[in-house]
Amino acid sequence: MSAPTAEPSAAPLGEEPPDTGERHRLTTLTGLAALSLDAMASVAYGPEAIVLVLAGAGAHGLGLTLPVTLAIAFLLAVLVASYRQVIAAFPDGGGAYAVARTHLGERAGLAAASLVLDYVLNVAVAVTAGVAALTSAFPALYGDRLGLCLGVLALITAVNLRGIAESAKALTVPTAVFVGSVLVLIAVGLFRSAPVSTAAADGHPSAVAGQASAVGALLLLKAFAAGCSALTGVEALANAVPSFRAPRVRRAQRAEVALGALLGVMLVGLAVLIARFHLQPVEGVTVLAQLADASLGHNAAFYVVQSATAVLLALSANTSFGGLPVLLKLLARDNHVPHVFALKADRQVHRHGVLALALVSAALLVLSGGDTDTLVPLFAVGVFVGFTLAQAGMVRHWRTRRGPGRRGRMLLNGTGAVLTGVAAVVVTASRFTEGAWLVVLALPALVAVFLAVRRTYARIGERLGLGRTPQAPRRARSLVIVPVSTLSRLTSEALTAAVSLGDEVRAVTVCHPDPEDVARLHALERAWALWNPGVPLVRLVSARHALGRPVAAYVREVTALAPADRVTVLIAETEPERVWQRLLQNQRGALVAHAVRRETDAAICRLRFRLR
Amino acid sequence: MSAPTAEPSAAPLGEEPPDTGERHRLTTLTGLAALSLDAMASVAYGPEAIVLVLAGAGAHGLGLTLPVTLAIAFLLAVLVASYRQVIAAFPDGGGAYAVARTHLGERAGLAAASLVLDYVLNVAVAVTAGVAALTSAFPALYGDRLGLCLGVLALITAVNLRGIAESAKALTVPTAVFVGSVLVLIAVGLFRSAPVSTAAADGHPSAVAGQASAVGALLLLKAFAAGCSALTGVEALANAVPSFRAPRVRRAQRAEVALGALLGVMLVGLAVLIARFHLQPVEGVTVLAQLADASLGHNAAFYVVQSATAVLLALSANTSFGGLPVLLKLLARDNHVPHVFALKADRQVHRHGVLALALVSAALLVLSGGDTDTLVPLFAVGVFVGFTLAQAGMVRHWRTRRGPGRRGRMLLNGTGAVLTGVAAVVVTASRFTEGAWLVVLALPALVAVFLAVRRTYARIGERLGLGRTPQAPRRARSLVIVPVSTLSRLTSEALTAAVSLGDEVRAVTVCHPDPEDVARLHALERAWALWNPGVPLVRLVSARHALGRPVAAYVREVTALAPADRVTVLIAETEPERVWQRLLQNQRGALVAHAVRRETDAAICRLRFRLR
Repeated sequence: MSAPTAEPSAAPLGEEPPDTGERHRLTTLTGLAALSLDAMASVAYGPEAIVLVLAGAGAHGLGLTLPVTLAIAFLLAVLVASYRQVIAAFPDGGGAYAVARTHLGERAGLAAASLVLDYVLNVAVAVTAGVAALTSAFPALYGDRLGLCLGVLALITAVNLRGIAESAKALTVPTAVFVGSVLVLIAVGLFRSAPVSTAAADGHPSAVAGQASAVGALLLLKAFAAGCSALTGVEALANAVPSFRAPRVRRAQRAEVALGALLGVMLVGLAVLIARFHLQPVEGVTVLAQLADASLGHNAAFYVVQSATAVLLALSANTSFGGLPVLLKLLARDNHVPHVFALKADRQVHRHGVLALALVSAALLVLSGGDTDTLVPLFAVGVFVGFTLAQAGMVRHWRTRRGPGRRGRMLLNGTGAVLTGVAAVVVTASRFTEGAWLVVLALPALVAVFLAVRRTYARIGERLGLGRTPQAPRRARSLVIVPVSTLSRLTSEALTAAVSLGDEVRAVTVCHPDPEDVARLHALERAWALWNPGVPLVRLVSARHALGRPVAAYVREVTALAPADRVTVLIAETEPERVWQRLLQNQRGALVAHAVRRETDAAICRLRFRLR
Repeated sequence: MSAPTAEPSAAPLGEEPPDTGERHRLTTLTGLAALSLDAMASVAYGPEAIVLVLAGAGAHGLGLTLPVTLAIAFLLAVLVASYRQVIAAFPDGGGAYAVARTHLGERAGLAAASLVLDYVLNVAVAVTAGVAALTSAFPALYGDRLGLCLGVLALITAVNLRGIAESAKALTVPTAVFVGSVLVLIAVGLFRSAPVSTAAADGHPSAVAGQASAVGALLLLKAFAAGCSALTGVEALANAVPSFRAPRVRRAQRAEVALGALLGVMLVGLAVLIARFHLQPVEGVTVLAQLADASLGHNAAFYVVQSATAVLLALSANTSFGGLPVLLKLLARDNHVPHVFALKADRQVHRHGVLALALVSAALLVLSGGDTDTLVPLFAVGVFVGFTLAQAGMVRHWRTRRGPGRRGRMLLNGTGAVLTGVAAVVVTASRFTEGAWLVVLALPALVAVFLAVRRTYARIGERLGLGRTPQAPRRARSLVIVPVSTLSRLTSEALTAAVSLGDEVRAVTVCHPDPEDVARLHALERAWALWNPGVPLVRLVSARHALGRPVAAYVREVTALAPADRVTVLIAETEPERVWQRLLQNQRGALVAHAVRRETDAAICRLRFRLR
């Protein structure tokens, strides 16, 4: 690391020195790879969610997959256009939260809560979907899917604790392989001459529940809402603009458009193939696996595609690890969450955010048993709430602006807000008993936590007199108290430090009325008299074998007698050479420090004496 | 708690004030109850161990139960007489370790290791045997025995963390019930007219493996060795003499003799009943349960006896919780184990010893699956090594003394040493593959740890100049560095403390080259100039978002420029009103303290500003 400059004027502040975080930042391509994986991942579970709903209306229902997908692709275009504008309007990142904070006032907390939930659920959904892709290809692993999920989560967490740029580079290859293989799959499938029936693939039973006849409007809405889970992740880029290399806004916008184009081509292409192959949902095999099987055949290519899909899907959880810590940092600056989330560790990583995300995701994985279908509805609710709030905020944004195209843009965002709002209501109502209730409870609970944290910080700030000029510091008489138990070089070091710091220094020793300790005390007192360090040794008798409390009581006594003095308790300890030798330390210092901290207002000064 | 006296001369040292630990100490009766439970417990598994070995020679072998038990009772008398002398010779407790330390030189570490193992294994054996007694009466609980074992262990640990005297009082009633019920069982069984056959009790299959004919000398030796597990615990009183109320030696000796008499009567009485009822081992039902069934009948009395037995057996693990922490304290004073084990918490409890014992015992319970028979051989090996070393040490002891009866006593101890030595070899050899190998490995490993710890303490003591008069303390110029980030009452408090402690004070603030932080810095510098506290504000620029390292680097820089100065880093933090509000602290102080501690020799002074 570079040595910090201490000269107030010489510091090159304002322009960025060469070794800033810049080389850790993302280009358009690495940004697309690192932050769009969630969106790519949704290709695996979005079409599947549509097919599962429409299968309720039999073969006729399944024929509507393509129209529903086209409606979703239209919504995708609206969202990409909208988020392109969000990136330009809020270059500091934060996406929906930043929009809502600026334009929606009170409802910003709700937007933040929905985003936090989305990030967490995205990790859980992506990991389970990735493992489902794997177990579609290798059914023997199906029993261990929860263990696999947790292992993958641990891996992603470890990569992210090392810093986001490194992980982005690590992810470029799998992203390319996945996108390439899905495009090849679509191309081969489109030019394949004879459609193959896949209903009895691997002997799995068909999940089509009889032949329902009429396709109602409600079923179409449900299919649309379910399929909208394919759109999750398009907001991740807008949330993480500061992770991009300069010019940030342009790079992020380019990545957003590229993401929308790729995602749209993939979704529509897969929907065409679903219709062409008359595909039906099969238990235990994902729709994407069935398509790969039908298009490429059940050969080595199938396994390559499935493995690449599984790896990428699992790693797509990375989107959240890129976005949530940045969001938490913004929330911490607004006093909504504890300030530790704004603290970066040495590797440019918001370690607390990464670890919190990993823990909550692990809990979700365990609770759901590693099952994607349990998690997707929860995910969709939060995502649509976020989309709706962001687009409603953008409508307000355009109202306050002048310029060409303002009306068209407002219309675009308004349409998006209505569409995603309807989807949010539909998915919540249709999946309420299947887990959506959890999100309906968690959203207001999170908002309440944000408000409580904010109130507490306000009260603390008030008591600290933040924003007001404080009293001038005034010099007081300094009394330093040094607990000792034996005489050694450590005692000498402690007293040297103490006489340098204090106007008056007193050594104290705690003794207990048992013969052994009395003998120790007398030896110490004799040695002290011989040594004659110019510091009195005060004997604190305690009948109970406590070390800390007698010192704390003495500090209270001294403070009561001379309230103007500043009392400091100086604790000297050896710093061992090796880590295991810490086990050999007697913890007396820690005991005294704990008692003094709990029971008095004295400052505690700890001096480590290095053994060399 | 009583307030400590600070006056050096007025302290009533040497005589014990009324509120010393004395009222927490044990009388003969409570001492017997608290520390003899292990010995009493062995009544439940000792006779059983003999029967299991002799059953290998069929009915003829089982007929030898009484002679073998009489030999064990003889050994018991020898041991009690020996430990009576150990108590007198070593009133500070420590038992076998104290004897070995005084009289065996190098081998003391081995004695200590065997005792540590015994204490741990005693907890495991007693808890599993207690649960076995319970599941003999209530077979439905048999499947949950490991869970039951861990629950009982947790209960004992909690009681012992509250202090030993309270637990002794709590145990007096169950001990009386158990001893009384076993004595009633023996009396009723002896006067019952017609012996009842018990072989098919509850439809359990007989565990006698065919009708082996000859009873070899080796089998008798194995039965003797196995039955000697009934003698475990007679040394516990000698190890814990300091827990007794004055006059300690006499009370402990009386308790030891009472323990020997009770134990002898119970063992011989049960052996007579075993012969009288022609008892055979039955899987899943303990020998004591069979005897209770045969003597009292399968009625309410049987369940009362079994429940009392189970409760007492489980609680008998308490012996170790009384003894091991005292032994660890003695080992800590000899620098064999970390000094924390000599530290008493506020309730007169060696908390570290209690917790270490609980953890290792829990591990043993889990590894053995809660099965007594797996643990007993491990236990017996360690116990006999300890017995042998203690008695060999006592033979040396008598050699150095003059007086009447010296030869007779030496003969007594010598006989005991030979008998227990033979038993140790036999039990190790016969059970080597069944777990005794673990003890054979663990003993030298523990000795090696003791030696390594001792060597390290010696090296640390050498470097600290322990026992030599250290350099006189010398006053140096004191420079106090105060990291700040904003201006508040906390800053004012910090600077007040700093100017009171230091000859020179510098405030430092770490800033990063991003626009937000530059704005914060400029605001801080303007406010600082307005405030004008008489302390310079030094700007430390760091490109990486680290907080601690720039401060540590500055400390190193300052130290290099003025090596004679004493540098102190003063960190002021708010102390929140409620515990949950600690989550809101930003951890900046902890980061800085960690970096400064790791990278520099500066003292770290932490000031807690209480929010009221």
